[in-house]
This record gives sequence, C-alpha cells and structure tokens, in this order.
Amino acid sequence: MSGKLTVVGLGPGSAAQLSPEAAAALQAADLVLGYGPYLDRVPARAGQRREASDNREELGRATRAWSEAAQGANVAVVSGGDPGVFAMAAAVCEALERGPGAWRDLELAIVPGITGMLAVAARVGAPLGHDFCTLSLSDNLKPWSVVERRLQAAANAGFAIALYNPISRARPWQLDRAFEILRTLLPAATPVVFGRAVGRVDERVRVTALDRAEGSDADMATCIIVGSSETRVLERPNNTALVYTPRSLGAFTT
Amino acid sequence: MSGKLTVVGLGPGSAAQLSPEAAAALQAADLVLGYGPYLDRVPARAGQRREASDNREELGRATRAWSEAAQGANVAVVSGGDPGVFAMAAAVCEALERGPGAWRDLELAIVPGITGMLAVAARVGAPLGHDFCTLSLSDNLKPWSVVERRLQAAANAGFAIALYNPISRARPWQLDRAFEILRTLLPAATPVVFGRAVGRVDERVRVTALDRAEGSDADMATCIIVGSSETRVLERPNNTALVYTPRSLGAFTT
Repeated sequence: MSGKLTVVGLGPGSAAQLSPEAAAALQAADLVLGYGPYLDRVPARAGQRREASDNREELGRATRAWSEAAQGANVAVVSGGDPGVFAMAAAVCEALERGPGAWRDLELAIVPGITGMLAVAARVGAPLGHDFCTLSLSDNLKPWSVVERRLQAAANAGFAIALYNPISRARPWQLDRAFEILRTLLPAATPVVFGRAVGRVDERVRVTALDRAEGSDADMATCIIVGSSETRVLERPNNTALVYTPRSLGAFTT
Repeated sequence: MSGKLTVVGLGPGSAAQLSPEAAAALQAADLVLGYGPYLDRVPARAGQRREASDNREELGRATRAWSEAAQGANVAVVSGGDPGVFAMAAAVCEALERGPGAWRDLELAIVPGITGMLAVAARVGAPLGHDFCTLSLSDNLKPWSVVERRLQAAANAGFAIALYNPISRARPWQLDRAFEILRTLLPAATPVVFGRAVGRVDERVRVTALDRAEGSDADMATCIIVGSSETRVLERPNNTALVYTPRSLGAFTT
C-alpha cells in the first residue's frame, strides 16, 4: 500500500502562524479532512478533495482518513492549533489501533502547530512561564469528578492552568464550577486570561481576577489561562497590562 | 520613545517549523539577542547586529534588550521553541517590572512558536493527547522539594508529564530521582519518550518504559514525556511504534 496519512496542525488561526512544513503537507494532499471551520482555513488547491465533518466526529473522521489512505490517497487531517493537544493526532492513533492490521503498514506523519494556550499566553505576556497544567474541561470523554480532582491537584501544587474546551451549549455550567473550585484554593486576585480566537479577525482577549471570572465570558473558541499564586499583573499606563509567571519561585518576595 | 522589543519563538529547530510571523520579526530587527546556538539559527541579514549570551544570563539579556529598545532600536530576543515556556518571555516581563518606569511605554510583542514537547509528541504519536503537565526539572530557580511535590501531584492526578531542562552538568542526579519518584506512583510499563533536538540534524528519539528509563539517556537538549497510566504503545511491524494517550478516559477498558 502506498497511501499516506498526515495530521496537520493549522496553528491558532492566522496564516502567519502556519508553519512552512504544515503548508507543504496541505499542498501535497489529495484529500483533506476536518471540522468545517478548520477546512475553511486551508488554502485552496485545484484537484484536491475536501470533506468536512462535525467537531464531535473525531474517531469517525480518523477512521475515514485511514481507509482512504489504505486505498492509496495522500490524506491530510487538519486540527486547529496543534494536533497533539486535545485534537486529531490521538483520534488517528486510536482509529489505527481499532482498525485492520494492514493499516499499520501505512505511513503516518504528524506536523505540530502552535497550540491555543501558547498563542493566548503570547498575547498577554508569559502566564505559562513557569510550571503549568493543560486540562480539557469537557466531561464528554471523562467523568466530571476527574476534572475536579485534577483542577484541585494542579492548583494545590502551584501549577498555572490552561483550560481547553471550557464551555459549550451541551456543557454550560462546568466552567463556573471550575472557577468556584479554584476560588477555594487560590488567591482572589489570581489573574485569569480569556483568549478567544487569537490570531483571527474576531480575536478577543480579556484579563480579569479569579474572584471576578465568569463562565459567560467564554465560548467554544476560548482558551483560558488561570495563573498560579506566583502569577503577576504588570500595569503599563500607555499599554495593556502584562500577565506573567516569573521563572523563579518567590522572585519578588526575596 | 520609538523602540520596540519582540520576543521571537524559533520553534524546535527546523526552518520548516519557523512561522512566517517569526521570520518577518527576525527580518525587521536591528539587533538580535539570544543564546548563541539559537542565534546561529536566525537567517543572516546585512546590517543587523547580533549579541550572543550564555543560557544562564536570561535576565541580563532581557534588561539589555529593553535598554537598547529604549534607545530606539527594533530589538528581537530569540528563544528556541516557544518563548512563553521556560524561556525569554517571562524574563523580558520581569526585566520590565524591575526596570525604569519609562520602559513600560515601549512596544512589546511576543511571537509564539512550536514548543519542544509538541514537536517530540508529534514524532511518536500523541502522548499529550489528554490532560498533561509541563514541568521544569531545574532546581536553579525553585527548591527541589517543590519539583518533587509537583511530580507527585501530576502523577497521582493522572496527568501525562512533559519535563523540560531535565539534566545538565550542574544538575546530574535530578532526572534519575524524578524517575525514582514516578516509579512509585505509575505502572512499570508507563511509556517514556526521550526526544532530543527534534527537527535538527542531530535528532534522536527513543521510547522506553518507566522501569527502564535512565537519566543518562537525556542531555540538555532533551525533552522527556512520561505518559499517564492511560498512555498506550501501539506496535507497528514495519514502522516505529506509536505512543498515544486516548482522548477518553478508559477508552480501552469498556
């Protein structure tokens, strides 16, 4: 079999953040599969087939990609951000493990991208400049009790926390519950960054404090960063404030 | 004042992983500051000044960058990978907070990049496909007891763990001690990925199990990913094995 599957990270949204390696992989593909809004960001190429599917259809899309590759196609599966962070790379591996053994002979390449939390962090300073955790708030694929336990562990151990999949129509209360838990463990003034659609025309970035953070400030396109107790807000009279976590623990207490 | 400071992420090493936004920022700079091996990766431009400094001189380099920007220069400070992950963005913010108030009027931009753990993960599959923690193993900037506490919290809560700064001449025993701690908390077969210089000519990637992981397999240029108890190794007879963490908790037990 001569087909190939490439999982391609599109980055946060701006074409200026798409790597040359990713652009080349998209250009080379016979067939591109992905969630519709991500496919819309792939530069058009004559003769290339495209198939959009819903963002809840990850395993089905991955299985379809392997099946097309097994028939000889050069298939690209796209993810926003990085495909390895709550995205298609794991689904492609899982579909391979569940699929026909012959698929394991096919070539697989994964092209990394700039994941959302890095783009959000860059917009405001360096909130992820020290140890941090990256957590999906979705309880579609794990019990909510596990989410709560991980939030508590991360906050208690002094990690900053990046939250993916914070809210959706089907999951309306989870983010406020997460803030409620974090408020019992972290100072009220802990900085919280809401970064929505960073790098795209509808970008919106807002910094607030944990005691004022509200779930209604986020939507599906938002990545949230909650600081640790070390994270600082640096005011600039003629510029937006910066949010950063110093590289040293206790940098400003000694 | 009309100077500007841009912190630029160079990505893991390959020019194909440098974003167009980062390439443009490097091209526009009058002066580029950074650790020598990173400066060597910046495409040459006539008339551009460059200043290399040691990788332990981050705060001094950041202060120097602000001081040059205050004199009107367009200054780029470079980091390997992403500047927001254990790199120059936090140092630039800290230097600003400690520096003259007038510096806060200067323009600051941070250009994100593909950080090491994402490049390593992409090489082997999707070990960071579910919740994970990112931890620097360096005890130069925090006490070792904090590192141990965070390792325990991360492993107990079911996070995969990406380890930056795993080892150096000055810190020879810490990585073996970290494996020792993790062996008491995670299954012996937990996959461990050593990814060295990914995307560069001297790239070396190795997958092993936690009970066989040894500090001597890593050097300063290595990023290590330790799976969670959910992380799987998928053998492929005619290809390298894949390592991935399924998107669903218990995906293969139900």
